[in-house]
Amino acid sequence: MAADGLLPPTHAQTFRLSMPRDSSALDGLRTAVAEAGAVVGALDLVEGRGGRVIRDVVLRVRDATHGDELLGVLARLEAVGVLGTSDRVMDLHYGGKLQIQTKVPVKTREDLAMVYTPGVARVCSAIAANPKLARTYTIKRNSVAVISDGSAVLGLGDIGPAAAMPVMEGKAMLLKDFAGVDAYPICLDERDPDRLVEMIAALSVGFGGINLEDISAPRCFEVEGKLRQRVDIPVFHDDQHGTAVVVLAALLNAVRLVGKSVGTDLRVVVQGIGAAGIAVSNLLMAAGVTDLVGVDKNGIVTPRRREARDPIYRRFGKQTNPRQLEGAKEVALDGADVFIGLSAANTLTMEQLDLMAADAITFAMANPSPEIDPALARGRAAVVATGRSDEPNQINNVLCFPGLFRGLLDAGATGIDDAVKLAAARAIADIVEADELSPDYIIPSPFNRAVVPAVAGAVTAAAEAVAAATPS
Amino acid sequence: MAADGLLPPTHAQTFRLSMPRDSSALDGLRTAVAEAGAVVGALDLVEGRGGRVIRDVVLRVRDATHGDELLGVLARLEAVGVLGTSDRVMDLHYGGKLQIQTKVPVKTREDLAMVYTPGVARVCSAIAANPKLARTYTIKRNSVAVISDGSAVLGLGDIGPAAAMPVMEGKAMLLKDFAGVDAYPICLDERDPDRLVEMIAALSVGFGGINLEDISAPRCFEVEGKLRQRVDIPVFHDDQHGTAVVVLAALLNAVRLVGKSVGTDLRVVVQGIGAAGIAVSNLLMAAGVTDLVGVDKNGIVTPRRREARDPIYRRFGKQTNPRQLEGAKEVALDGADVFIGLSAANTLTMEQLDLMAADAITFAMANPSPEIDPALARGRAAVVATGRSDEPNQINNVLCFPGLFRGLLDAGATGIDDAVKLAAARAIADIVEADELSPDYIIPSPFNRAVVPAVAGAVTAAAEAVAAATPS
Repeated sequence: MAADGLLPPTHAQTFRLSMPRDSSALDGLRTAVAEAGAVVGALDLVEGRGGRVIRDVVLRVRDATHGDELLGVLARLEAVGVLGTSDRVMDLHYGGKLQIQTKVPVKTREDLAMVYTPGVARVCSAIAANPKLARTYTIKRNSVAVISDGSAVLGLGDIGPAAAMPVMEGKAMLLKDFAGVDAYPICLDERDPDRLVEMIAALSVGFGGINLEDISAPRCFEVEGKLRQRVDIPVFHDDQHGTAVVVLAALLNAVRLVGKSVGTDLRVVVQGIGAAGIAVSNLLMAAGVTDLVGVDKNGIVTPRRREARDPIYRRFGKQTNPRQLEGAKEVALDGADVFIGLSAANTLTMEQLDLMAADAITFAMANPSPEIDPALARGRAAVVATGRSDEPNQINNVLCFPGLFRGLLDAGATGIDDAVKLAAARAIADIVEADELSPDYIIPSPFNRAVVPAVAGAVTAAAEAVAAATPS
Repeated sequence: MAADGLLPPTHAQTFRLSMPRDSSALDGLRTAVAEAGAVVGALDLVEGRGGRVIRDVVLRVRDATHGDELLGVLARLEAVGVLGTSDRVMDLHYGGKLQIQTKVPVKTREDLAMVYTPGVARVCSAIAANPKLARTYTIKRNSVAVISDGSAVLGLGDIGPAAAMPVMEGKAMLLKDFAGVDAYPICLDERDPDRLVEMIAALSVGFGGINLEDISAPRCFEVEGKLRQRVDIPVFHDDQHGTAVVVLAALLNAVRLVGKSVGTDLRVVVQGIGAAGIAVSNLLMAAGVTDLVGVDKNGIVTPRRREARDPIYRRFGKQTNPRQLEGAKEVALDGADVFIGLSAANTLTMEQLDLMAADAITFAMANPSPEIDPALARGRAAVVATGRSDEPNQINNVLCFPGLFRGLLDAGATGIDDAVKLAAARAIADIVEADELSPDYIIPSPFNRAVVPAVAGAVTAAAEAVAAATPS
């Protein structure tokens, strides 16, 4: 398992080989593969007549280049012929990851007359007379549009709308699989924020919620802000607010663990003032943090800095940094209780970490490589979290968005506000019970089945409380 | 069955009744219901302790008003209490008619790493490097957007996008159920044709085809025409071209039956020069009809008529009517072989029908009431078809669009042209074999399982022939 465990599950390649039937040929294959640093994951006999057989051999490899190397290794093996090769992740994506399922049969003319013309006309007329019935008699009741323009996809950047589809399909899958939400991926070939708003508002009619995804900053702020004014369903930019909810959840447990609290005494430094950094900061302040300082590669963010000509940046500078610190990052880190990194790999040094207060909390979430090596950071900080699945305390948005949308749809919510996000964060944090809480367990696993119902229930309650307080 | 057969399947209402257990109470109920013109469709015992029981009684009624009357009848029955009532068609629509299904499990962290981050990034990168791979590795391979603005829905007219959703969901259901196409309904709250084109083009990225639906004329011409220029997937306005394909299919068999042919000798009158009328005329001319005359409530359409200031109307006037007829509809009908009505109820008289040639063919497709009573028309015309499901020879678009999109997706088609539509029409017509052909059977049933594969195969072949002839 040692060598196997080091190979990522995302790279497995299937080779179709023609080879002698005798077991020594298979032994030779295993040896050659092991020598090349790969592992035989599975063997299937495809055809086995006579002295030669055709086998599909799955090899777990390090990456695509390693897979190409293995092709060469296999091709050089005596008496083995490579008939073809395929790739496990690519194969899984063949034809896409979603399909439509009908909920009502259409087997007879009578069925047709009910779900289509002429019967359907009565349902249409009922909705025309009372538009609220769209939530009762159409898929609006349980549907979310997962929308991107492909401008900031994962760590890949601006790869365009077509290439963003697999991510949006994946997100839709998770919404269905984790929370029973019927989500559909829509990638838009449009970059102008106002036109994006027009389009998304126009198509929002049939949906009960909108999950914006992988839209680059600062356009994402404008798109989300204007959309919220335009539509009567919740709009949620996951890269911002999903991250904010999960960071807050982790922070609530981290401060509990070290005997501090999310309040006016807590000194927080947020590094990386992009879409996620701003959203995290806003939600932390909504949760009661007042002493929050933003830093980026030019040091502490203040309303007087040059970049502050950007209104979003200037507003951030005004709303944070109550002690009006100026200068280098070290000034902000001096005595800080919490470091939250949403920036770039290896941008926090041990010397900088040493400036922090006792029982420091460090969330280093740059992907795929954190701001600081978590193993090193654990030598100094009391709690360390990252975005990585192979480290303890993974800050993963999957903890938030499925349960959040489940709760919003269940409430028939027309919007989303801080109360809802705070409720979601508290629900996630509360999954970890007091006697379980430890430096390597401040946040539940995305596969913990208690997460979605807890988040959904808390969100529904919060959304209904908001609705009850709002005169309609 | 006689009374039952007259009641439409689209109106069935369930009443929850508290009533005495003895059978005489049930007999009294049946009698009262029958006297009120309804039929007991089903009986379910919900709860049956003691001397009284609770039953769900399904009554088939004429319409919603009739259902309300029955409620009164039941309420007046001695010893019967009405606890509640619900409606079968409305119930079927509760929560919508579609859901999303995932094709790949996400049960483990390893699954997540393959269908979502980090594995999915490799699929994204592959598509970014070669956009054609979107058809291989995303739902684009098998998906169709069913798009409407809700401006001309069924016979209901302009009921808006939210109220149009049930029809679009129904269409998507049929695409899935009949042809395995994953279709998603999108209703757009937008009326400007140029903005509709922008929006649909932008969202077309993730789809393999676009089915436009229930968009009012003349906007539908502009939207469809401009979209075809903009996108690299087939765009099909079903109200126009679906109708055209099925009308042509019926006509091919009708002329075969009476020993005529679709060619220069055939005199065709099309009544109702809206979206469908123009599309039908164009496809009939593409199939070889030359003597086609359009008529509307002002008589024969010519390029010199007042309405001809509309460019679509003027073009139609120029491209049709080769004998340059003028004046009343009767002039056109004199000696005509075929009458195709896409207009309004009771607009063709027996006297007008009498003007037609021997072995006249009459397609009276106004919905829900045809241009002429088909029973009367059968006394004079050799072949009569309508849009009604309760008459022989129903011209139903369901015969076309599922197989058409199946074939286009299978071919990876980037567009659609007359050759494809003609192939679809011939495939539908050919389902009716020579020895089956009769005045009451010129077109197959939508539930004939041979239709979709025949249409799909013919469309794929035609689309691939077009693609092969087009330098890419």
